[in-house]
Amino acid sequence: MSTERFAYLGPEATFTEAALLKYLDMQGLRTTARSQPMRNAVAALDSVLDGECSAAVVPIENSVEGGVPATIDALTDHGRLQIVAEVVVPVRFVLAVKPGTDPHTLTSFGSHPHGEAQVRTFMSANFPDAVYLPTSSTAAAARDLANDAADHVAAVCPALAAERYGLEILADDIGERQDAETRFVIVTRPGTIPAPTGSDKTTVVASLRSDRAGALLEMLEQFSSRGVNMSRIESRPTGGGLGLYQFSIDLLGHVHEARMADALQGVHRVTRNLRFLGSYPSASKNTVPLDPTTTDDSFAAATAWLDSTLNG
Amino acid sequence: MSTERFAYLGPEATFTEAALLKYLDMQGLRTTARSQPMRNAVAALDSVLDGECSAAVVPIENSVEGGVPATIDALTDHGRLQIVAEVVVPVRFVLAVKPGTDPHTLTSFGSHPHGEAQVRTFMSANFPDAVYLPTSSTAAAARDLANDAADHVAAVCPALAAERYGLEILADDIGERQDAETRFVIVTRPGTIPAPTGSDKTTVVASLRSDRAGALLEMLEQFSSRGVNMSRIESRPTGGGLGLYQFSIDLLGHVHEARMADALQGVHRVTRNLRFLGSYPSASKNTVPLDPTTTDDSFAAATAWLDSTLNG
Amino acid sequence: MSTERFAYLGPEATFTEAALLKYLDMQGLRTTARSQPMRNAVAALDSVLDGECSAAVVPIENSVEGGVPATIDALTDHGRLQIVAEVVVPVRFVLAVKPGTDPHTLTSFGSHPHGEAQVRTFMSANFPDAVYLPTSSTAAAARDLANDAADHVAAVCPALAAERYGLEILADDIGERQDAETRFVIVTRPGTIPAPTGSDKTTVVASLRSDRAGALLEMLEQFSSRGVNMSRIESRPTGGGLGLYQFSIDLLGHVHEARMADALQGVHRVTRNLRFLGSYPSASKNTVPLDPTTTDDSFAAATAWLDSTLNG
Amino acid sequence: MSTERFAYLGPEATFTEAALLKYLDMQGLRTTARSQPMRNAVAALDSVLDGECSAAVVPIENSVEGGVPATIDALTDHGRLQIVAEVVVPVRFVLAVKPGTDPHTLTSFGSHPHGEAQVRTFMSANFPDAVYLPTSSTAAAARDLANDAADHVAAVCPALAAERYGLEILADDIGERQDAETRFVIVTRPGTIPAPTGSDKTTVVASLRSDRAGALLEMLEQFSSRGVNMSRIESRPTGGGLGLYQFSIDLLGHVHEARMADALQGVHRVTRNLRFLGSYPSASKNTVPLDPTTTDDSFAAATAWLDSTLNG
Repeated sequence: MSTERFAYLGPEATFTEAALLKYLDMQGLRTTARSQPMRNAVAALDSVLDGECSAAVVPIENSVEGGVPATIDALTDHGRLQIVAEVVVPVRFVLAVKPGTDPHTLTSFGSHPHGEAQVRTFMSANFPDAVYLPTSSTAAAARDLANDAADHVAAVCPALAAERYGLEILADDIGERQDAETRFVIVTRPGTIPAPTGSDKTTVVASLRSDRAGALLEMLEQFSSRGVNMSRIESRPTGGGLGLYQFSIDLLGHVHEARMADALQGVHRVTRNLRFLGSYPSASKNTVPLDPTTTDDSFAAATAWLDSTLNG
Repeated sequence: MSTERFAYLGPEATFTEAALLKYLDMQGLRTTARSQPMRNAVAALDSVLDGECSAAVVPIENSVEGGVPATIDALTDHGRLQIVAEVVVPVRFVLAVKPGTDPHTLTSFGSHPHGEAQVRTFMSANFPDAVYLPTSSTAAAARDLANDAADHVAAVCPALAAERYGLEILADDIGERQDAETRFVIVTRPGTIPAPTGSDKTTVVASLRSDRAGALLEMLEQFSSRGVNMSRIESRPTGGGLGLYQFSIDLLGHVHEARMADALQGVHRVTRNLRFLGSYPSASKNTVPLDPTTTDDSFAAATAWLDSTLNG
Repeated sequence: MSTERFAYLGPEATFTEAALLKYLDMQGLRTTARSQPMRNAVAALDSVLDGECSAAVVPIENSVEGGVPATIDALTDHGRLQIVAEVVVPVRFVLAVKPGTDPHTLTSFGSHPHGEAQVRTFMSANFPDAVYLPTSSTAAAARDLANDAADHVAAVCPALAAERYGLEILADDIGERQDAETRFVIVTRPGTIPAPTGSDKTTVVASLRSDRAGALLEMLEQFSSRGVNMSRIESRPTGGGLGLYQFSIDLLGHVHEARMADALQGVHRVTRNLRFLGSYPSASKNTVPLDPTTTDDSFAAATAWLDSTLNG
Repeated sequence: MSTERFAYLGPEATFTEAALLKYLDMQGLRTTARSQPMRNAVAALDSVLDGECSAAVVPIENSVEGGVPATIDALTDHGRLQIVAEVVVPVRFVLAVKPGTDPHTLTSFGSHPHGEAQVRTFMSANFPDAVYLPTSSTAAAARDLANDAADHVAAVCPALAAERYGLEILADDIGERQDAETRFVIVTRPGTIPAPTGSDKTTVVASLRSDRAGALLEMLEQFSSRGVNMSRIESRPTGGGLGLYQFSIDLLGHVHEARMADALQGVHRVTRNLRFLGSYPSASKNTVPLDPTTTDDSFAAATAWLDSTLNG
């Protein structure tokens, strides 16, 4: 068997790599797969599209920051890829230094601005005089520190980065939102859609017809009239001007279920553009509750009724 | 060619026979067809069901009185029949007497209570002392008068009845609502559904699930989410108790149109029972206006989109 | 105290008088009130409007036939009256003869066509040769029989009529629908609205704006967006032509409740005409279930929120 | 008159300061007002809340990136402030160097990651070998370059920053989306709401009740049942876990209009929390189109109707 290659949004040792490792564990591929950090979400997805990698892992939603615009936009633009799985990992920052560093010499620390924002309370309380120096990622703060390529003497980074670069952890779990977590999706070339499990999500991106009042309501009614619920809805500008939106939506259910297939066809009619990004097992494994009027049986009975009506 | 036989809600010479004659004219069958009055709507429909007649004409809606419960109920109970056409006729009452009757001797008049209700203003003004005697139909008032089988000396009846029974018309168009009209449907055994014309109606009867709040709204949303409009909705008790309703509904469009077929399947899912009574050309010949999101092309594009999504 | 006078849809001894007697019992007025049969619903309501009677009792809904068009129309036209109570009575027909009549001589029977329709099975089975003679009411069949003013030898009528006119009951409860019942409303001049009881109904009549697609849905959404449910909806033609409708609606709740007052204002905006016919205790005494978002407290909190928002 | 002080999201010379200058021009305050850059949106809003500044300018929505989460969250948390105006400015990047710099020596450039993302195409084409060095803001790239405090030899920044820091513009308008623009809001302590102009927006933040299917639809129906349209809707995580959302919404209309006041009360009822952030003139000056059923007159007529109904 040839080695499978997995792309992920780099750099190395971020929460995204942690998500990939979790996914590889779930699939029993950890020891055989090769993983490859990519510069940004677009590059990660490109590497799948051109066949270099068999899948890519990208963050899609953060419980603190919300949707990840770059991923959502990249997925939308790469409409020919599909999401086949999701993985959720806790967001947990550590304060790391080179082994043996005296905490009293901690005069500066590096991190990505997002990381810094989440540890501001901790740092103010414990290292009020430490100067913040921005880095391009939280893992880069650790790497550059380990490589003596940084001006900062400490890094705020994921535990994985501290471990990977041989740093010493001074303080663990220092973020303000200790229940913060990020959701990642695993993306492949289009192919077989994962089989329904009863606990699935479907992700789509829809652009409203701009010239209609109530267009969002009209779209949502296509879902509600088939009993399809949402677990996430994100508005994204189309780029065509302020106020022109498309929506990135996670739905509870699978496109192989009749209510989802019917609802998506309805949404296709009333929107300007609709992209299907995949149906896949939900990380929560919660069974999607179904009303008796929206089961596959109910849809099949309706179709049978219509057939018998039309054909006597 | 064998003679076709048409049943209609009798007795003879009512507006229903007038509707049948109009329909036969439209079909070029007036000279060859045989028509047969039936005791009530159930009997008229039975004669079609058992093959005695090829079609039946029954009133379904009156612009003054509203829906005709007996017809709607009979059609619902005979779910295996289908409506293939509709005919609209004006409701116009005349005051008729035996030829040569002196108007000053008009001391009483016969009519069905519905007929009497509509000429009360005219009779009070012109014949304030005339006593009203109820008859089982407006045409019976004319027939019995002609046959010397009545206590009344005048009849309030359709022009057709006065003419048929050789009566003299003292006053024409004496009803209070001069624009009153009645809509009749032509009913056959199930078979080929008349082809769509762009100006069609579809008639259904739906029973709501009694145990749900908002059940009517839920049903109507199945229509609105596919852009299907109604031209008539009548609530009818199911007979199971006060407050339990079914709805007799005329929709604009044809079951061979995708939006109608899709909406009816949706209604089938959310209702307890749904009966399709027919798709047929509307008497008005008004083209049904269509939003671009609800054309057959729009539905076909949505299905094609889903297929390509599912099959790569 | 002066004697109160109550009008009811006559003639005497029909189910309507039975409803009035039940209402008078409920009010403890049976021995003191005077009751007065009226020719039709309009006359009954007129007698209230002009002060002759303090209230009128009219049938509004039958579990077999549905809404009573004449009453609904009369109430709509007399918009200045209000419903203050409802009474439900079972519809139960008896076969009555003059005392001592031999059943074998029962060659004919009189009844109103509606009565006859409901006993057809019984009469066919037991008196297949009896000829049916129409009368203007079921009670008239009994009265005329008692007074030797009829051609028929038996009457199909309410028990009250048989008793009132001294007839002998040959068979009791001979109707086909043994659970049939009729709902009557008690109507007064406008004045104090009965206090809310937690189990109330509100009756309105609304005319849709004819020139709008989805007008019925738009009206119903005004109710649903405030959590107001319906217990009855009847379409009635406006008389302006086929397909132009107004709706007679019973709602669960009281106009003194905020959700009802708010919903009715919304309906007023989106309809061509809206008439309030009354809020009154429901006969069922079932408590109206309320969602926490639609209680008076919820509305008061929303108003308080808005006030504080506007006034800092 | 004392000098008014205006806070804005710093640093100096960003698009936010450009927005403030535009606002001060509109108000005729440019020469007298003092402006003050603040570290982040929270600090800018704090300076208003504690009275140090009379208003703050913060970005709320970008036509490329979408809503600005930090601002939306800060406004939500500072619920006691109000938006009184909006300003839209084009997003236009320049490539700037110290005067006299030879373009051939342009081996590196500094900018905020967002700025870099938007000029990637231009830089790859024209300066393929230039290394990107992240800075904490686009203006900081210019300032540090001017102050000889940077490793980069060029800055990608707003024209205002190049001008302010005495840099030379090598290339103008180098962003990929030349129609990109950002919308800013001017925020004050709560007080008089700006008078309606007929072209107004209202901004609110609503948290859905998490335990309800269809909660978003239910909220949107409160708007649609009063004819209130949205110009922006952004989902924001509440921070309580993946999938728990609140919505930042711009509505067309003013809280002093009846339809808006009524809709907001409805939304208050059906949501867990609702914050009003202000009603203010829209930058577009487009008149909000009104259906006749949603004018103030229509609401006033409905209230008058209810009053007369209740009080006879």
